[in-house]
Amino acid sequence: MSRIAYVNGRYAPFCDALVHVEDRGYQFADGVYEVISLCAGRLIDELPHLDRLGRSLDELQIAWPIDRRPLQLVLREVVRRNRLRDGLVYLQISRGSAPRDHKFPVSCEPSLVITVRRARPRNRGLREKGAVVITSPDIRWKRCDIKSVSLLPNVLAMQEAVEAGADEAWLVDEDGLVTEGTASNAWIVTEKGDLITRDACQAILDGITRRTVLSVAAREGVGFHERPFTVAEAQLAREAFITSTSALVLPIVQIDGETVGDGRPGQLTRRLIREYESHVRASSNRSELA
Amino acid sequence: MSRIAYVNGRYAPFCDALVHVEDRGYQFADGVYEVISLCAGRLIDELPHLDRLGRSLDELQIAWPIDRRPLQLVLREVVRRNRLRDGLVYLQISRGSAPRDHKFPVSCEPSLVITVRRARPRNRGLREKGAVVITSPDIRWKRCDIKSVSLLPNVLAMQEAVEAGADEAWLVDEDGLVTEGTASNAWIVTEKGDLITRDACQAILDGITRRTVLSVAAREGVGFHERPFTVAEAQLAREAFITSTSALVLPIVQIDGETVGDGRPGQLTRRLIREYESHVRASSNRSELA
Repeated sequence: MSRIAYVNGRYAPFCDALVHVEDRGYQFADGVYEVISLCAGRLIDELPHLDRLGRSLDELQIAWPIDRRPLQLVLREVVRRNRLRDGLVYLQISRGSAPRDHKFPVSCEPSLVITVRRARPRNRGLREKGAVVITSPDIRWKRCDIKSVSLLPNVLAMQEAVEAGADEAWLVDEDGLVTEGTASNAWIVTEKGDLITRDACQAILDGITRRTVLSVAAREGVGFHERPFTVAEAQLAREAFITSTSALVLPIVQIDGETVGDGRPGQLTRRLIREYESHVRASSNRSELA
Repeated sequence: MSRIAYVNGRYAPFCDALVHVEDRGYQFADGVYEVISLCAGRLIDELPHLDRLGRSLDELQIAWPIDRRPLQLVLREVVRRNRLRDGLVYLQISRGSAPRDHKFPVSCEPSLVITVRRARPRNRGLREKGAVVITSPDIRWKRCDIKSVSLLPNVLAMQEAVEAGADEAWLVDEDGLVTEGTASNAWIVTEKGDLITRDACQAILDGITRRTVLSVAAREGVGFHERPFTVAEAQLAREAFITSTSALVLPIVQIDGETVGDGRPGQLTRRLIREYESHVRASSNRSELA
């Protein structure tokens, strides 16, 4: 858990990391966030995360609370004050505090909150044996490309997964096509050995790990297609996995009770895990304070 | 503005009304709310509001932070400490604070926040001359029957309305049918003089004022149908209006630039405004601490 958090210009003990009840993040889900991985003291893929943060802010017409470079310094200072080497950095920006009214306030400073956590949750063992997913109707809003804190349907679907003994829920749109997981992108490997993941449209978040895996595939000559797939196609796939900042590349071995492939993490998936790990190692050797 | 707010067991000066950054209301929009009107020192339709709150909590499996009766006492105490006679009481409950993780925390106390505000915003003049609405695609999640704080799409559509010089946006589903406003239910009056409002399904919030107007119609022998209607049907309607706790019954005289009826608040609408006002007067003569 964070010992020190950053809240609106102030480094505070975690228990004193407070926002006002009229912060629009609290009353309207009027805010965005990013989760950045920290490995060996380096923020992994920091720049793509900040670029995506900028896009989310733009889409909602929320200003940067501080400029990008000072923000990068604050991120490092939060990490430093928590003496953290490996973990996750959580960054949330909301439109700010103002008397409750749906329309944008005329003048209001965006809120900025940064916390860190040491552990990378539920991962090690799962990577070895593979994770289980259920599917659930995608009832979210139609702008899931914006990384907003409007996550209630994701929460409900993840809870449904947990109660079904699964590790993640894949969300399925009205056409029976998988959009993504509640907190991850969804992938399958076809019989031919091609990687398939949904195209980056307004129905999914264009994950940073998703993009890295696509680049690895391109570089390594692995065929890939960005297109939707059905639950049935996924259940019949040779392999399946999910990607996210916190789950990295995580094999999926069961979908709605149907075993995927031979029920063990697939060959291409395991190769992508290794490739992703070397991407992380390479990133952690670079400083990205650009 | 509230001078005193209630936050998790404590009456605090408004500026000190704070919640933790890991309150799930802030990070996941994992919470619900109600807005209750206060007239002449009485909470109007308090019991239906609390019933609906109970339903929202049930749907999300959030426990009551305190029992209903103590909650009613706290509502009154917040009103008393603010020396308020007329205004709006805002009540928000979230699943509580816990280390960030989509699934429900194993143990965590729900958060309760209550604030009040004196003014009933933007209403008096508008009631006389009628309000203007635009329409906007309904991109919200599919459980709008739950009064959750997952309001980002409502915020964006209301801002779109404001920027178009309108007072409210009516949201239109994929079939071209009006669901409701960003913060109100939508109504039209047909050529025959029948009231039409969308049936209470998962696509809309079943407004307390909506229900009162339906009861008034039933009692007064006004024909009504709970069914969807198109934008074109609304533009050709004899009258149109919206209902909500803060807007009460508010005439609509223009929809997407098309004048409704003769461009003035309609006859049935004006009658419903009067009927609603007598409902409020009658309610304010009753104590509902039941």
